[in-house]
Amino acid sequence: MLVGMPNRRLAALFAPGSVAVVGASRDPQKWGGRLARGALKGAHRRSVGLVNRSGGEILGSPAYRSLAELPEAPELVVACVPSASFAATVDEALGSGARAIVGISAGVDAAEERAIGERVRSAGAVLLGPNCLGVFDRDEELDLAPWVDFPPGEIGLIAQSGNVSLEIALLAEREHLGFSRFASLGNQADVEASELVEEFAHHDATRVIALYIEDFRDGRAFARAAATAGKPVVLLAAGTSDAGRRAARSHTGALVSDQATVDAACRAAGIVRVSTPDELVDAAGALLRGRRLSGRRIAVIGDGGGHGVVAADVAARHGLEVPPFSDALSRTLARELPPTATTANPVDFAGGAEQDLTSFERVARHIADSGEADALLVTGYFGGYADETEREVAAALAAVDLPLVVHTLYPASAAADVLRAGGALVYGEIERAVRSCSVRAPSATREIPLPAADAFEPVTDGYFSSRALLHSAGIPLAEARPVRTVAAALAAADELGYPVVLKDLSREHKSDGGGVVLGIADRSQLETAFGAGGDWSVERMAPLAGGVELIVGVRRDVRFGPILLVGLGGVYAEVLRDVAVALAPIEPAHAEELLRSLRSAELLSGARGRPAVDVAAAARAASALSHLAARSPWIEEIEINPLLVTPGGALALDARVVSAEAR
Amino acid sequence: MLVGMPNRRLAALFAPGSVAVVGASRDPQKWGGRLARGALKGAHRRSVGLVNRSGGEILGSPAYRSLAELPEAPELVVACVPSASFAATVDEALGSGARAIVGISAGVDAAEERAIGERVRSAGAVLLGPNCLGVFDRDEELDLAPWVDFPPGEIGLIAQSGNVSLEIALLAEREHLGFSRFASLGNQADVEASELVEEFAHHDATRVIALYIEDFRDGRAFARAAATAGKPVVLLAAGTSDAGRRAARSHTGALVSDQATVDAACRAAGIVRVSTPDELVDAAGALLRGRRLSGRRIAVIGDGGGHGVVAADVAARHGLEVPPFSDALSRTLARELPPTATTANPVDFAGGAEQDLTSFERVARHIADSGEADALLVTGYFGGYADETEREVAAALAAVDLPLVVHTLYPASAAADVLRAGGALVYGEIERAVRSCSVRAPSATREIPLPAADAFEPVTDGYFSSRALLHSAGIPLAEARPVRTVAAALAAADELGYPVVLKDLSREHKSDGGGVVLGIADRSQLETAFGAGGDWSVERMAPLAGGVELIVGVRRDVRFGPILLVGLGGVYAEVLRDVAVALAPIEPAHAEELLRSLRSAELLSGARGRPAVDVAAAARAASALSHLAARSPWIEEIEINPLLVTPGGALALDARVVSAEAR
Repeated sequence: MLVGMPNRRLAALFAPGSVAVVGASRDPQKWGGRLARGALKGAHRRSVGLVNRSGGEILGSPAYRSLAELPEAPELVVACVPSASFAATVDEALGSGARAIVGISAGVDAAEERAIGERVRSAGAVLLGPNCLGVFDRDEELDLAPWVDFPPGEIGLIAQSGNVSLEIALLAEREHLGFSRFASLGNQADVEASELVEEFAHHDATRVIALYIEDFRDGRAFARAAATAGKPVVLLAAGTSDAGRRAARSHTGALVSDQATVDAACRAAGIVRVSTPDELVDAAGALLRGRRLSGRRIAVIGDGGGHGVVAADVAARHGLEVPPFSDALSRTLARELPPTATTANPVDFAGGAEQDLTSFERVARHIADSGEADALLVTGYFGGYADETEREVAAALAAVDLPLVVHTLYPASAAADVLRAGGALVYGEIERAVRSCSVRAPSATREIPLPAADAFEPVTDGYFSSRALLHSAGIPLAEARPVRTVAAALAAADELGYPVVLKDLSREHKSDGGGVVLGIADRSQLETAFGAGGDWSVERMAPLAGGVELIVGVRRDVRFGPILLVGLGGVYAEVLRDVAVALAPIEPAHAEELLRSLRSAELLSGARGRPAVDVAAAARAASALSHLAARSPWIEEIEINPLLVTPGGALALDARVVSAEAR
Repeated sequence: MLVGMPNRRLAALFAPGSVAVVGASRDPQKWGGRLARGALKGAHRRSVGLVNRSGGEILGSPAYRSLAELPEAPELVVACVPSASFAATVDEALGSGARAIVGISAGVDAAEERAIGERVRSAGAVLLGPNCLGVFDRDEELDLAPWVDFPPGEIGLIAQSGNVSLEIALLAEREHLGFSRFASLGNQADVEASELVEEFAHHDATRVIALYIEDFRDGRAFARAAATAGKPVVLLAAGTSDAGRRAARSHTGALVSDQATVDAACRAAGIVRVSTPDELVDAAGALLRGRRLSGRRIAVIGDGGGHGVVAADVAARHGLEVPPFSDALSRTLARELPPTATTANPVDFAGGAEQDLTSFERVARHIADSGEADALLVTGYFGGYADETEREVAAALAAVDLPLVVHTLYPASAAADVLRAGGALVYGEIERAVRSCSVRAPSATREIPLPAADAFEPVTDGYFSSRALLHSAGIPLAEARPVRTVAAALAAADELGYPVVLKDLSREHKSDGGGVVLGIADRSQLETAFGAGGDWSVERMAPLAGGVELIVGVRRDVRFGPILLVGLGGVYAEVLRDVAVALAPIEPAHAEELLRSLRSAELLSGARGRPAVDVAAAARAASALSHLAARSPWIEEIEINPLLVTPGGALALDARVVSAEAR
């Protein structure tokens, strides 16, 4: 599903009618020299103006002293100047009517960068960078990133590191993959990753969008752009470790979101997340060349048992299933193979292929016909028989109606080439083969919610105003009365009925400091528990037995906005950190999935003799909280801890709101 | 530390004075043909007899009709015959005085295999296989595994799959690594992996022992052999997923231990565990060529920030540290680099190397001098400058006194070759570079305990006999009295003092079925709780508040023997499966480490306002239980659940013993 129109704002960046390079140099080793050479490659398609303070001639073209001197006003200006003159160059470019500026310059002051970005936007132009490596467009023959020799192909690359881009290009070339487009993000003073994803989505020559990102800027917009791109998006998100985060902050001033938040965004948007440049290239290759799987069930076949064992283990680690075949299918396969063969999945031909290589083809076809697998993984020796029959069998295997991935000891064999030509993915390493299945397995994408700032008035800090806010959002709470004296407390308890809970509202962390007294059975216990003045709450005691305590909260990520967190509550669970997160707001059905994805989900459905609790009620409360927070930008953090879930419903037993101002 | 003498039993397997191949064939494609060719390669060193029922001539050598006809009795016999004649061939070989037999034949009946193994052992000979691929010894020019063309080198390979061995050989060749020896395990009817590890440990030409194993047989002996080999051991243990286990069982009849048990054995023995053949080859390469790290702190340097960010993330995933440098070191580095550089670790030269490539050398030396890192990881562009200076800097980098690992975009460059020649590990992929650091990082090996069957008499099943057993092992238990009548219960409670706990011993899973009543405050509550006849226990109620409930148990792994498990007890923790395991028995100090390795270890040291508990007491109880179980082979499973640990000590509140017969 492709949403909206192409981002015309960016047209001048990739398909400019004219280009100028400010800071062009005669020295071919200098950046200004390489840029001049790169720009001139497109001189048969557009006017190219080289600007150098000293004038003269560069690579046979005249060098002008300023943009103003150029015979034709440039639509796109590349600024490769010292940081001190960057602002002036941008202003000059805008003055000469440029629609797009590529800022190569590094070391520009952060505040100045923001101001420059603002000026560019006001002028209706765009700025890529600064501290970027430029742009490349295969079909436009636009090479303003000539540090990297991008082989032609169908990957659109958006990256926030020059050297990582170079590595990706080199690795892609090794895999006979190439690039349709490249944009170096730099410090994103104006153009952000999300806009580039939108633009690449409308670029027909780009079939896969690949990104290296340290700072997502508007993460929500990024996730939406990826989710609606209508083509696969592969992401290497860096800076998720402590040291990586420290490094990213120095490198591009990135504000880095945590691992779980980025994962939640990727899950929701259907983004394929990878960890290294070579995984990124492999994923792009699988997305360009492999077939989509309709599920996660893999059939593993090979002649020789060890490879099947290893493949099954690796598949399990990547969250794929290698389910045992039905007896019927097993029996059918057994008829094609020697008696020592294993036919349960993994299938071990036990020498059967050595006797008759065509058994590969028949076994594959039976598996495809059975509907018991979503992909076929051939592993091991195939490719090593090296005869005409093997090439014929390879062609027949590729023709079987099931996505085919092959791990072979002989990835450079003729049979491997036949397999590739037939649309199979072929690898020399089992891990890469399995990963490609995982990349092409289905993911459950969702609409990316856009938080709206429309609803709830800020509340002053305090327990009872937090409760009122939750109540207004439809979240059920244990009944409570604010009291300041022991007399009022006794009256409240009489009204609510014993047993009651007494909370000392002056304490910060009630569960740590002992500010909550549970199960007060009568007036004398209440009098004993009640301390000196201050603010207290007397509450109806909820039936804790048979219930499960959850924690439900929303915090605001600096890049991705409100993030809902659900988890098992209580001291054990907090220490064990069994939580799941999603971009808020979410609907109750999604919240229920989230709850059931917890490691401890068994407890909700009645593990170890406990009753099953009302997960739907908990999910409704979590969903309501997520909507409340998403619609209230003043909320920095909001938390129900615990949310008591019993067989009969869910009840917030405590609440806390932190407003942005309060922090 | 090398323990014991070389296993002379196996000498005839790797250095035989004479060899015979039974089932030798004229057809060069058949296994018998390849074996004949392989055996004849060593004909200048030893007599080689070829045996074929039809006689005649094979590859210019006479073929004899039986072993008896050979002019010289063979010390080593390779049996490559149909499964039906395998037993007869073995007997004939033993009759002719063979000291070693290599069983290539597959499909021999499992019971027959065992009987054959027994006969071979009684005759004082050894049998490798059957269902194996043969043996290879580089220096002996013994090639009785001619399906694989082993490049010469220093890896000793022991493997349970022919095709996986072939893959390992091909991958090793790609990395310019090779093999000193190879033994194919097959079904281990006689010779097991542990014996081969012992033998390879004494083989000077072997510098690293690499294994592919599906079935460990005597796992404890294997772990001991690896721990005392005196050279690194790399293990690809297959069959750890459900499907993998299913496949391994079919492939070699393997009884497969679970992932956690194999991990515990590897940790204890200092074995490097890998998941795929290419990881195995990479690990062997790092162990042969790289330097040992003295800790897990990595300094990451490069010219360009993105690679540092990615490297830091990958390092964190592999359990390595990328600690921030001291201010002093940071300042020193800053003096060598441009002002835009980052010097905190990762170090980003920010173009500084482009200006002056020798800054690499100076930065590296400062880091080495500081003592703040255990290895230096250079990442990114280095290798791409491609001039004389770069080669000089590469040599200087390799000479710096710190283990050096390089990830470069140009692994085939001249600079990369200089780095390799200087002892650096050089990779084209960051993940491999980081993994090599991890492989060479120190591990805390331990002496592998050998369970002794010397101590505790079997007890009859039953709660009080289990308690008596634990008591005899010195484990403190809550005081208890067995009762059968309400009168006896009341008397017992009076004696113990209220509150008491009442347990219905007729129930199987007391915590699920409600067979335990806690906190009985007085006689009337006890009368109410007491049901009809049967066996009951009245116990002194332990002070649960402020305590942590642990589960401590020992179960018997089919291959690795008694395995101690410690974990957080209670229903939440059981569901969250927060457990740690070790080969039993272990000493209290090790048990305490194990307890502190739990995800929930914070709870023991007093998280969230709770008191710190007596972990040492818990560790003593766990250690005592591990000794008890290890010395009592009749115990199939033994469990204390819960073991209550309070600030004042540890107390077993419930116990269960399952004897091997009872299962």
